[in-house]
Amino acid sequence: MAKDILSEAPEFDYIEKAPVIDAKEFQKVVESRRSVRIFDGKPIPEKVMNICLENALLAPNSSNLQPWGFYQVMTPEKKAAMIKACLDQVAAKTASEIIVVIARTSTWKDHAAEMLRIFSKASYVPEAAKSYYKKIVPFVYGMGPFGIFGPMKRILFFFRGLSVPIIREPVSSSHVRQWAIKTAALGAQNLMLSLRAYGYDSCPMEGYDSKRIKKILELPKDAVVVMVIAAGKRGKGGIYGERIRFDSVRFIKKV
Amino acid sequence: MAKDILSEAPEFDYIEKAPVIDAKEFQKVVESRRSVRIFDGKPIPEKVMNICLENALLAPNSSNLQPWGFYQVMTPEKKAAMIKACLDQVAAKTASEIIVVIARTSTWKDHAAEMLRIFSKASYVPEAAKSYYKKIVPFVYGMGPFGIFGPMKRILFFFRGLSVPIIREPVSSSHVRQWAIKTAALGAQNLMLSLRAYGYDSCPMEGYDSKRIKKILELPKDAVVVMVIAAGKRGKGGIYGERIRFDSVRFIKKV
Repeated sequence: MAKDILSEAPEFDYIEKAPVIDAKEFQKVVESRRSVRIFDGKPIPEKVMNICLENALLAPNSSNLQPWGFYQVMTPEKKAAMIKACLDQVAAKTASEIIVVIARTSTWKDHAAEMLRIFSKASYVPEAAKSYYKKIVPFVYGMGPFGIFGPMKRILFFFRGLSVPIIREPVSSSHVRQWAIKTAALGAQNLMLSLRAYGYDSCPMEGYDSKRIKKILELPKDAVVVMVIAAGKRGKGGIYGERIRFDSVRFIKKV
Repeated sequence: MAKDILSEAPEFDYIEKAPVIDAKEFQKVVESRRSVRIFDGKPIPEKVMNICLENALLAPNSSNLQPWGFYQVMTPEKKAAMIKACLDQVAAKTASEIIVVIARTSTWKDHAAEMLRIFSKASYVPEAAKSYYKKIVPFVYGMGPFGIFGPMKRILFFFRGLSVPIIREPVSSSHVRQWAIKTAALGAQNLMLSLRAYGYDSCPMEGYDSKRIKKILELPKDAVVVMVIAAGKRGKGGIYGERIRFDSVRFIKKV
């Protein structure tokens, strides 16, 4: 029988050493990333923008199904329309670049097939990994016609879960959305930190008209707008004040 | 009339200069962050763990409503239970630390009130910002008893949206969950990159029994388990192979 891909370690001889990193430089990135709402208007070099976008794709993602998308708005017409769709927010109006982060709820099918294609060319892939993309992924993320598999899975998980630990989600298309949004957000954070590391700033926006954005960018039907990122170099008065965070004991629990 | 807090820049005299950063060090963090599934068992120093957790809270978040939580599992009993709840995944079994990232869907009320308390002590806060937390936040995130405001808002946004751009979400409790999950994921990515910067590794896991985790950690009722992060130092064979990403033209669009 094939080893369980989750609970038993397959035998790979791959080694990837961790580089030595100056954590102080990273700490500066995290601490100096602020939501900047007024940009100075200077462009972000294309090369920098491309590095930051590629870095977004290096974030971890669910089962490597990569359910994300990053749209850099290039044309003046689309930029003008995007500013309106972002309710004329100052950050959008003054941004050098506008990037729309989307989550994809149905690309997992193609991407699971793509993983199997890649596996078929690899020198060694455990059977369990192939079976994961062939059988488990469609079972977990598939909701069937009109979503009927969702409630069925919910019942199955409920009864099976009485005796053993079992996954509980996704059992609805809303859960699939949550799943894809989560991964897209991980990529978005890589993007924003990357901008900071290379000397630029960002403002993630949620105040927008997602319906209009889908139209402007002709987004695929299964796309969910996760956030719109305004980017550029911080301008005068662009950070509205010191960072406010409530006491961390509210959020960090040692249990 | 108060200026619109979104579309007009308030006049602050706050200045926060960006530090000079060695982007190469950051690039190493992003590139060397891999999902590590076997850890070497050595502990993560408490000081490092605390810096990484605090860094999570420096991620951007929706309207500063901070709808996130990070539970570090400390006791051997809870750790053992968590491993089972994570379906005995190798990453959980070998992890030095297990951190559960949660999203909170109802803390926004308290947190909006907290923002107003902080504002009341500040030397200058524009009226529009106060009004934002007093009126707009409850309108946007409140779904009313049994969620009845959701469909009402959906209809309102639909008709209003015919003539002007308008926000479309959240108009359901599921949208509120998506909203909170998004912010929690931004924090999670800060946490994972921080671990890497300080010489440690992580594996974000989604294969878990969220119902059992809620019980084990006695999570608040409104909590959604976003991901479980196994952390430690990479062990032999802990990275299963070279990173696989599909061609970036699938994900990065210049439009």
